[in-house]
Parts: sequence; C-alpha cells; structure tokens
Amino acid sequence: MMDFLELLVKRRSIRGFLEKAVPPDTIMEIIKDSCLAPSAGNDQPWRFIIVGNKDLMKKLSDESKKNLLVDFAKNPSSPMKRYMQILQDPAYNVFYNAPCLVFIVESTEHRPPYVDCALAAGYFMFSATARGLGTCWIGLGANIREPELLKEIGIPEGHIIVAPIIVGYPKSIPTEIYRKDPRILKIIP
Amino acid sequence: MMDFLELLVKRRSIRGFLEKAVPPDTIMEIIKDSCLAPSAGNDQPWRFIIVGNKDLMKKLSDESKKNLLVDFAKNPSSPMKRYMQILQDPAYNVFYNAPCLVFIVESTEHRPPYVDCALAAGYFMFSATARGLGTCWIGLGANIREPELLKEIGIPEGHIIVAPIIVGYPKSIPTEIYRKDPRILKIIP
Repeated sequence: MMDFLELLVKRRSIRGFLEKAVPPDTIMEIIKDSCLAPSAGNDQPWRFIIVGNKDLMKKLSDESKKNLLVDFAKNPSSPMKRYMQILQDPAYNVFYNAPCLVFIVESTEHRPPYVDCALAAGYFMFSATARGLGTCWIGLGANIREPELLKEIGIPEGHIIVAPIIVGYPKSIPTEIYRKDPRILKIIP
Repeated sequence: MMDFLELLVKRRSIRGFLEKAVPPDTIMEIIKDSCLAPSAGNDQPWRFIIVGNKDLMKKLSDESKKNLLVDFAKNPSSPMKRYMQILQDPAYNVFYNAPCLVFIVESTEHRPPYVDCALAAGYFMFSATARGLGTCWIGLGANIREPELLKEIGIPEGHIIVAPIIVGYPKSIPTEIYRKDPRILKIIP
C-alpha cells in the first residue's frame, strides 16, 4: 500500500524492464482498478487487450513505425517529426521489449472521444506503480492499421486504440523529468 | 495522507458542496500535482483557469447549455440527447453551484489531442480527493463559444477547454456507482 502523494512523485515513465513476467492476476487487478475511473454519463467505454508475446509486440511496433513514417512523408511539418530519426532505426522497438503490453480501446462513436479512456489509463498507471510495476504510455504504438494485425489482436471494427501501455518490473527508476511551473491563464476570485 | 488503493475507491463524482470556500493555496497545490502527469514528448500542454465567482459560473453554465441545445437541434440523433431535458431546465446549473471551478485548457494544435490534459485532470481529481475535497469533471460545461465570455475567462485564441472540473468540500459521499465487469477483448499470452 502506498500513500498517494508519494505515488504521485514516484510514478515515472519506465522504458527498461527486468526479465521477469508480470503475473496475469496482477494485470487483471490493475484493469479492475482502471474501471473505477469516472466517465461521461458513466458509459465506461474502455475495453482491454493484453499482449504478452514479444514477437507479436515487435510486429506491432514495426507496423506502427511504418505508418508513422508514411504520415510524416505526407505531412513533413507534422509536430511528430521529432520522432522521425528514431523511427527509421530498424532496431528501435516502440514497446521497449517490455514483458507485457495492454491496449485500452474504445468505439470511434464514443463521445467525447479519448478522455474517458485516458482517465482509465491514468488509473492503470497509478495502480501498476502502487503494485511495484513500471509503465509507459506509448503514443507511437497506437498506429496499427493492417486489417490482419487488427484482427489478430482482437480490435473490433469501428474501434480505436487510445492508450498502448507497456508494463513490467522496472530495471531502475529514472530521476524526475523537467516540469514547467504551472501555467495559470487567469484567476477569477 | 491517504493510501492509493483507498483513494481509488473513495474518489467519487461530487455534485453537492458545503458552503465553504476552497483555500486558493490548496487549489495551487492540486494544480502543481496535476502537472506531474506524463504527457506525449513531455510537452505538458496543460494550462489552468481558476473561477471562484458563482455569478460568472452561472453565466458560463447558461452559455454551455444554450450551445448544447443548438447542437442537439442540428443533430437530433446525437448521443448527448439524453441530457436534452435537464439542459432545458433554467434552474439547472451544470456546475452545481460549486465554490470553485477549474478549467484545464490546451492549444488546438497539440497532438495527440485531449489525452494529456485528461491525464492531468485525473491527477487533479485524485490530489483533491486526497486533500478531503470532492470533484466532478463537467463535460457539459466545456461548450463556451461566445468570444466575449472566452475573453473574460482568459482562454487565448486557438485554445480549447478539455476539462471543466468543479471542486469543493463534499456535502456527502455518494455510494459507489455501478461498474461493468472489465471487458477484455483478447489475451495473447
């Protein structure tokens, strides 16, 4: 059990993991915690996919990288262009060879889009940290479009990946990353 | 200080508040905690507006209700139509007469949209709960379009409200709301 204000500071994005499997029951507990997130109209739009197969993760990483590079070629001024170089490196795995990958998925018809699943992802990352695990939301890993691959991982038609989250036991805890001071646009007392 | 797994269960959406002001320093601490959320490329796109004036909140509520009703008239099959009746009630204040309202705002150019600010909103709601406060993300309160009003609350051009969150000391803690069992689309070991 971990105090929340301690957890707030301890949760870091983890990209290096021990060679130690995450117990399936622990993943299920974390997913159950994630379902406690609030959602618009209590819709609870979140669905989950659990991937523990590293070969498949590598395939999903390659697919996402390929699609992002196609997007950059079409739109060279994209704000994502800072990732161009790393995505061109064939050795780079967007999922960092993690032992487990969880996709949080919603229907494209859900309104408002993304925010409910993002809240569930926040719950997921806190619950995992409280259980001694490390996580990282891999935005670059959401660009899976090949119908065969979408079918293989069980994403129904009309659904999108909101949050790909890697999970595992951290090799080490990185030091705190730079934070800007809060930007308060206006206070109206 | 509150254990996280306790906090997970205790955080409820609060819509009834005591007549007790929230100390500005506490709001600033909660905002500082919110800025510890992870974000794509560590962009930290969140900006904050703090409103403590109930007359202004009522005006913002009326503006949002009016715009939502215009939208429903244009798109009668909108998934938001379940709110139609309540929005037509002039006495209904979407912000529930809370003592404080915080908007989390981002640039419309930020990519990916919404999710980073949604994570910050999750941090905000946990941090507030850990400090004995209650919150509710008011999705219906984000539809402010009148340029004069946007200027009055300090939203720069090219920015949107992702999360309007009401904050105050709860009158009572509602019982736990219905949760579906986790929907796992696929497990690939």
